[in-house]
Amino acid sequence: MTNLPKTKKLDLDLAGGWLTIWLNSPENRNALSAEMSAELVTVFDAVRNDRSIRGITLRGRNGLFCAGGDLKGMKSTANQDASATERRMAAVALSQQGGELFKSLNTLPQVVIVLVEGAAMAGGLGLVCCADVIAVTHDARFALTETKLGITPAQIAPYIVQRFGQPTARRLMLTGAQFRGSDALTLGLADHVADNAAGLDAYETTIRQQVLACAPGATAVTKKIVLAAPHLKATSMISFAAEKFADCMLSDEAQEGLSAFIEKRNPNWATGGEKA
Amino acid sequence: MTNLPKTKKLDLDLAGGWLTIWLNSPENRNALSAEMSAELVTVFDAVRNDRSIRGITLRGRNGLFCAGGDLKGMKSTANQDASATERRMAAVALSQQGGELFKSLNTLPQVVIVLVEGAAMAGGLGLVCCADVIAVTHDARFALTETKLGITPAQIAPYIVQRFGQPTARRLMLTGAQFRGSDALTLGLADHVADNAAGLDAYETTIRQQVLACAPGATAVTKKIVLAAPHLKATSMISFAAEKFADCMLSDEAQEGLSAFIEKRNPNWATGGEKA
Amino acid sequence: MTNLPKTKKLDLDLAGGWLTIWLNSPENRNALSAEMSAELVTVFDAVRNDRSIRGITLRGRNGLFCAGGDLKGMKSTANQDASATERRMAAVALSQQGGELFKSLNTLPQVVIVLVEGAAMAGGLGLVCCADVIAVTHDARFALTETKLGITPAQIAPYIVQRFGQPTARRLMLTGAQFRGSDALTLGLADHVADNAAGLDAYETTIRQQVLACAPGATAVTKKIVLAAPHLKATSMISFAAEKFADCMLSDEAQEGLSAFIEKRNPNWATGGEKA
Repeated sequence: MTNLPKTKKLDLDLAGGWLTIWLNSPENRNALSAEMSAELVTVFDAVRNDRSIRGITLRGRNGLFCAGGDLKGMKSTANQDASATERRMAAVALSQQGGELFKSLNTLPQVVIVLVEGAAMAGGLGLVCCADVIAVTHDARFALTETKLGITPAQIAPYIVQRFGQPTARRLMLTGAQFRGSDALTLGLADHVADNAAGLDAYETTIRQQVLACAPGATAVTKKIVLAAPHLKATSMISFAAEKFADCMLSDEAQEGLSAFIEKRNPNWATGGEKA
Repeated sequence: MTNLPKTKKLDLDLAGGWLTIWLNSPENRNALSAEMSAELVTVFDAVRNDRSIRGITLRGRNGLFCAGGDLKGMKSTANQDASATERRMAAVALSQQGGELFKSLNTLPQVVIVLVEGAAMAGGLGLVCCADVIAVTHDARFALTETKLGITPAQIAPYIVQRFGQPTARRLMLTGAQFRGSDALTLGLADHVADNAAGLDAYETTIRQQVLACAPGATAVTKKIVLAAPHLKATSMISFAAEKFADCMLSDEAQEGLSAFIEKRNPNWATGGEKA
Repeated sequence: MTNLPKTKKLDLDLAGGWLTIWLNSPENRNALSAEMSAELVTVFDAVRNDRSIRGITLRGRNGLFCAGGDLKGMKSTANQDASATERRMAAVALSQQGGELFKSLNTLPQVVIVLVEGAAMAGGLGLVCCADVIAVTHDARFALTETKLGITPAQIAPYIVQRFGQPTARRLMLTGAQFRGSDALTLGLADHVADNAAGLDAYETTIRQQVLACAPGATAVTKKIVLAAPHLKATSMISFAAEKFADCMLSDEAQEGLSAFIEKRNPNWATGGEKA
């Protein structure tokens, strides 16, 4: 059983094989400070290899998801009393740290749900786009405001493109345009738009039940495959997929799953989930 | 003129330059058994280089498209009385055979239409996603149920991602969620949703007429280009496209097509099709 | 201040930091002749490095956007009194010239809006798909008619796929099917569908104001990032993005932008634009 780290900017809630991570930093509207970013990476690393944790929900306290990046941290990096070379190294390091955070979230083996109420701006919207399943309230607000400040949505770009597709990503990144949750389905951001927080909870319950009916090991392998698929050529994809298929096929999970299917019973991992 | 192979799990119907392939295996709801897979590859190989066959429609008898993969075949592969090494080789080989089937369908030079009524599950949905044009009935059912059984949608992953885009592919592959034909337009699966089988036929007639108005050789070249486009860098794409353009431009087809356009008549390949 | 080239097939209008390029060739319905293509590339090269030009709008005079490629030029290339080798070289060169045009438009550092009324056919639709923001009138007509003529949409393929996604690109490229502006939102072509030309103007004004509120240098960097994102692996993307972020973060623009944000005033580039 995983020992979850102590965190100051996050509330952690682990129950029923599901970890809920609440962004909770009221003094800066849950902004992605260096401290919060470091805590998120620590939590992701702690749970990554624990197959008893079947899924992760990421959401925000204080009525919103995340107000964006850490502008004060950025400004102090640029202004610090140091040589040009040192300031450049600091700016590059700050950005790379962000890049590692988004990559870590995007590649978690567990199913990741993000629920958004209030707002998810700039880097906050980047976090959202790393999820497997996204639900938002119809009045939630979103924008990529970086270029209005003279900076750029650099590390989140791959995830913005991944989620919205390149055409919408271009427009949103280059105009800073704000949009609402009610447009999030059409724009490709959300899988579901809810009326309010209760609607988000209800949708999350549905997804959780679906995920709990799926085998944990097969889920982790499948996530690796779906993340690799856009980046492999057809021939190497066939070999890669065949090895992953064999890994699953010869596992105890597959024996249990196929037996349960033939015997018309639930497999042993499907506690609290749907019948297969 | 192509000699079509004899098949037991498929009904073949060639008329008017169009091949219709009916999946027909009532004993297992048109499931993708080793036998059906092998027959499909044989048929695809037989017609691949025949430019007199202008298009291919793939659909199912017995009121559905395809119930999915061959679970009995999979289970026996895993259980066979053999060493661990031999069982792994058998599982890899089984999966690779599937990978070759999907690749073969996806890269057919002819225009491929898939029509779905009833259901297209797991590997059956993989077949659907290899088409150029997809129409479904509003009550058809779809799901990627693999992880519920402890296995994984490995070889179909590139085609699921290709068709749905990565965001929806992640959700469907990781939750096993079922959806209906009525959602297939919004989710990006279908080009057209019909009320019933007659509506599928009417839509197919429209597409067929469009395709028969297009030059067969130029169609085959264009399909090569559209399949290559996402995988080539900008500079190599320009050279590749220029060679393909020259192949068409200097062909008898282009001379006939441009002359017909200037003379306001149908080109010689547009029999039964639309006027250009 | 950029000296704009003299052009015969284009009307150029530069005002308020925005360049409007009107395709204007009434004798062939704004078709992409060799002359118009060359003029477009010359204009793009002239403005590419001028950060005082914040955006570019491309649209058509004579009630339509562009009727397509230069069929007479193509036919004469194929028919010319020359050896087979020479004709092939001429066809390849003609196609490469087109490829360079589309690439040049797609990679302009400025924000590019395309407005379509009337029609955008074949290569004309290729131009549209190179934009960052696209608006069309509901009655505008679109089709990729190349294969009906025995030729192929080769150089525009990457941009058709980029904009529509591969599934819709396959269908449109392989069927020559015509569609209307009213379907352009669903098909992924347009960001906005307007009732008429006045509606296009109103939408353009909104986008222009958004863009003028964004920093010019940061916009150019961001466009480089969004174009690179689909083509870089995760690890090289993090390094690339970190360097681009540092370029922006340490620029005078970022100092001005972050100061303006903290002081609740407009940054010095936001003349006529929205408040950040």
